[in-house]
Amino acid sequence: MPDYAAPIERLIEELKHLPGIGQKTAQRLAFHLLKVAPEDALALADAIRDAKEKIRQCSVCHNITDADPCLYCTGANRSRKTICVIEEPHNMLAIERTRTYSGLYRVLGGALSPLQGRGPEQLKIKSLIERLKGGAVEEIIIATNPTAEGEATAVYLSKLLKPLGVRVTRIGVGIPVGADLEYADEVTMLKAMEGRREL
Amino acid sequence: MPDYAAPIERLIEELKHLPGIGQKTAQRLAFHLLKVAPEDALALADAIRDAKEKIRQCSVCHNITDADPCLYCTGANRSRKTICVIEEPHNMLAIERTRTYSGLYRVLGGALSPLQGRGPEQLKIKSLIERLKGGAVEEIIIATNPTAEGEATAVYLSKLLKPLGVRVTRIGVGIPVGADLEYADEVTMLKAMEGRREL
Repeated sequence: MPDYAAPIERLIEELKHLPGIGQKTAQRLAFHLLKVAPEDALALADAIRDAKEKIRQCSVCHNITDADPCLYCTGANRSRKTICVIEEPHNMLAIERTRTYSGLYRVLGGALSPLQGRGPEQLKIKSLIERLKGGAVEEIIIATNPTAEGEATAVYLSKLLKPLGVRVTRIGVGIPVGADLEYADEVTMLKAMEGRREL
Repeated sequence: MPDYAAPIERLIEELKHLPGIGQKTAQRLAFHLLKVAPEDALALADAIRDAKEKIRQCSVCHNITDADPCLYCTGANRSRKTICVIEEPHNMLAIERTRTYSGLYRVLGGALSPLQGRGPEQLKIKSLIERLKGGAVEEIIIATNPTAEGEATAVYLSKLLKPLGVRVTRIGVGIPVGADLEYADEVTMLKAMEGRREL
């Protein structure tokens, strides 16, 4: 006898495809969905369908959006002099939350990763260079993650972009605000020392 | 400007309704769904819809099933002499995995919990008593969770069922197999001492 009726097994299987969701969590979520009112469960099904139908990539910055070009690319109050380069669309939110950046964005779609077979051709780099030829952009802020892949991407981009006469900067890496030095890993501590500034 | 385009916000909101899924996880799941092939994301939406349409409660044991009565209640190789009482349908799987139990089940739909306003009327107890009147059942195994609510439910059921001339048993509570006594909490240790057997 199978563990559960076929539609439940199928739901659990589909939930397991989500990142970070294993067998136990998938079971818990499936039983929750079976327990709630039909309209609540169907609201999730509809939201998935709706998002997949309406959301596409912005043809300018490769952000995900329901309007092309996206709200950032067309925003009247966004400066066209700065482009912030990020790995994934959701990285944008972390920067927007600072409420200090009002330039444009560029989503790479990941970072260079030879192990995962992701080279420069797989990232949205060519069209970025095309865009710089217009000459309006003065600074490129590279905000890829401070991981091995993100750093490699930053160095690669920097070498590629500097000859084009644009200022290339990298976000600061170091001890996060509110953290204790005692618990900082050695690489972060090293970066923090390297990145020290005059007081 | 909202954080994300409306369909993404809606998807994140719906995902947040799932148990144990907060803002960050919902965002991660939503971006995963937006990234995968449309057919993979829609497979999840369809699985939810399908499960909600096809799955109902077994009218005999209150298990969730796509056939009524369920496969356990109609199984030719299931003994009709024993009923195992559990809180939720998914508890059944833990017992089935032992491959030693071949009796019937009865899902209570929770445990007694005055704090949550769940009294005996909210649990499927009345119909259980009705069923015992047939006289075919010889033993009721109470497999509610060894929590305060589960124990209270077990005691309540035992007092209710014993006068009907049926044998009422409770699953063993103690140190789990493979665990270390050093890490056992005092209540579990107490229960393990109380539940000791002759060697």
